[in-house]
Amino acid sequence: MNEIKIFSPATVANVSCGFDVLGFCLDSIGDEMVIRKTDKKGIFITKIEGYDLPYEAEKNVAGVSALALMEDAKPDCGFEIEIYKKIKPGSGVGSSSASAAGSVYAINELLGRPYDKTQLTHFAMKGEALASGSEHADNIAPAIFGGFTLVKSCKPLKVLEIPTPSSLYATIIHPEIEIKTSEARAILPKSINLQNAITQWANVGSLVHAMHTDDYDLLSESLNDVIVEPYRSQLIPHFDLVKSESLKAGALGCGISGSGPSIFTLSKGKDIAEQVAEAMKAAYSSTGINFNIYVSKINTQGMQVI
Amino acid sequence: MNEIKIFSPATVANVSCGFDVLGFCLDSIGDEMVIRKTDKKGIFITKIEGYDLPYEAEKNVAGVSALALMEDAKPDCGFEIEIYKKIKPGSGVGSSSASAAGSVYAINELLGRPYDKTQLTHFAMKGEALASGSEHADNIAPAIFGGFTLVKSCKPLKVLEIPTPSSLYATIIHPEIEIKTSEARAILPKSINLQNAITQWANVGSLVHAMHTDDYDLLSESLNDVIVEPYRSQLIPHFDLVKSESLKAGALGCGISGSGPSIFTLSKGKDIAEQVAEAMKAAYSSTGINFNIYVSKINTQGMQVI
Repeated sequence: MNEIKIFSPATVANVSCGFDVLGFCLDSIGDEMVIRKTDKKGIFITKIEGYDLPYEAEKNVAGVSALALMEDAKPDCGFEIEIYKKIKPGSGVGSSSASAAGSVYAINELLGRPYDKTQLTHFAMKGEALASGSEHADNIAPAIFGGFTLVKSCKPLKVLEIPTPSSLYATIIHPEIEIKTSEARAILPKSINLQNAITQWANVGSLVHAMHTDDYDLLSESLNDVIVEPYRSQLIPHFDLVKSESLKAGALGCGISGSGPSIFTLSKGKDIAEQVAEAMKAAYSSTGINFNIYVSKINTQGMQVI
Repeated sequence: MNEIKIFSPATVANVSCGFDVLGFCLDSIGDEMVIRKTDKKGIFITKIEGYDLPYEAEKNVAGVSALALMEDAKPDCGFEIEIYKKIKPGSGVGSSSASAAGSVYAINELLGRPYDKTQLTHFAMKGEALASGSEHADNIAPAIFGGFTLVKSCKPLKVLEIPTPSSLYATIIHPEIEIKTSEARAILPKSINLQNAITQWANVGSLVHAMHTDDYDLLSESLNDVIVEPYRSQLIPHFDLVKSESLKAGALGCGISGSGPSIFTLSKGKDIAEQVAEAMKAAYSSTGINFNIYVSKINTQGMQVI
């Protein structure tokens, strides 16, 4: 096999209570990439469609993660990368992670799978660091593993696959405003109230228990963020309205996707997820801000060869 | 049934990463209580053996929790309580919780079980508040529910029963020094570093996942406390030595039981738990401080009628 075409999914990081550790994978939103073996050694980005991104491998997140893998694998070949970018950079659903994770996933396939998913996550984190300034795995892990993931630690890297209840759907609204990850990080306090932290870790433990026991009510009660949302929601116009309307429409929970501006909800069943989409649409239509809305099953497979 | 004798177990709260929310129940350490219906309405503590505790119901944790139940149940009778106290007050393994939980459990049995375990926990928290100054359930919940519990929230009270891997044993050392819960609380900072909080909630989520998947290695990696232990361990002489020696002897993890001074470890299998007990004994024997050591299976039943 000398060429492969893949779907590299968008992802939702943090998932309300799990700032920096939880994430899940989307089904219907993602980039496509074509990766091709070349005789010439090196990583060559030959095509980028959709958004304006750098072609130099060292300046492109897909390139940097691929180079990290190459440095370890030292294969007797190189790779051309074509990126069909559909996830808007800065939208808060893991755009850079999809690129970083997609290239290493595809190259690993073409090399005969010498690396496991944790190793691929490790390489992809090098690309993510180029985009965000620090190595995070909360979007990369769900893109590579699929489903819900908990990044227990980055050093050493340990990713846990949390089971996904089968009727779980996400509804995402992407308001077309820009929030830089660096800005969204800068707004956070360096220290937090101990009582709030206790609430947060009770919710994380409770969410993991809910996922293992298919308990949608408990999942709903666990989807609360008393640490980050009070700060970051200020950066997203009409966040409170979208949240209250989506909960009224039956969503289990609603929060900021990654560092925003996208807002995610989780719902039990596709019908409710679509009602939530309608409610979000109604809430945002009068704001004068352009937006997109997506409904997606939780993608338990992650990356896919297409 | 007019009289009942029960075993009310000792418990370990916090469990390293789960400050204020996690707890588990011990098997071989606990109080005994005899509760007897009386024609005269009210709660009458008629016997206390083992330790010097108040006989007035309003000043005794077992009395206060029983009165809280009585106020709700309004039964056409009263109850006499005999307390055979074996858990030393202030030892850090839920002495007051055993009393508070035992009386309401036993009265509920004698009344034909009008209340569920969550309601009993709620009543017992009233007794706990007398002892510690605030309503906590992290010792009461495991005493009443058995096994491992996660108190998701106190208001409203929500207790989750986390599955217990079958080979899990605890080893507890109780150094005979006194640490007041109030003192152990006062030493804690009101605000904590966000990065440390993230580490902590990753560990809580990871511990719950480990319990659901019988993953002892992951359980071991999750039993870390970067928030509370650095402060409270200063109150326990030779804590670091006990911890390092018990880990060397094969313990999965080691931490402060509740607010101390007891130190708990968890181990896979009784043999290792007993080796850990030997290592703790060797470590503490030269300190000049008296101590007791217990090895206990995790008690998945909780309260027992005997």
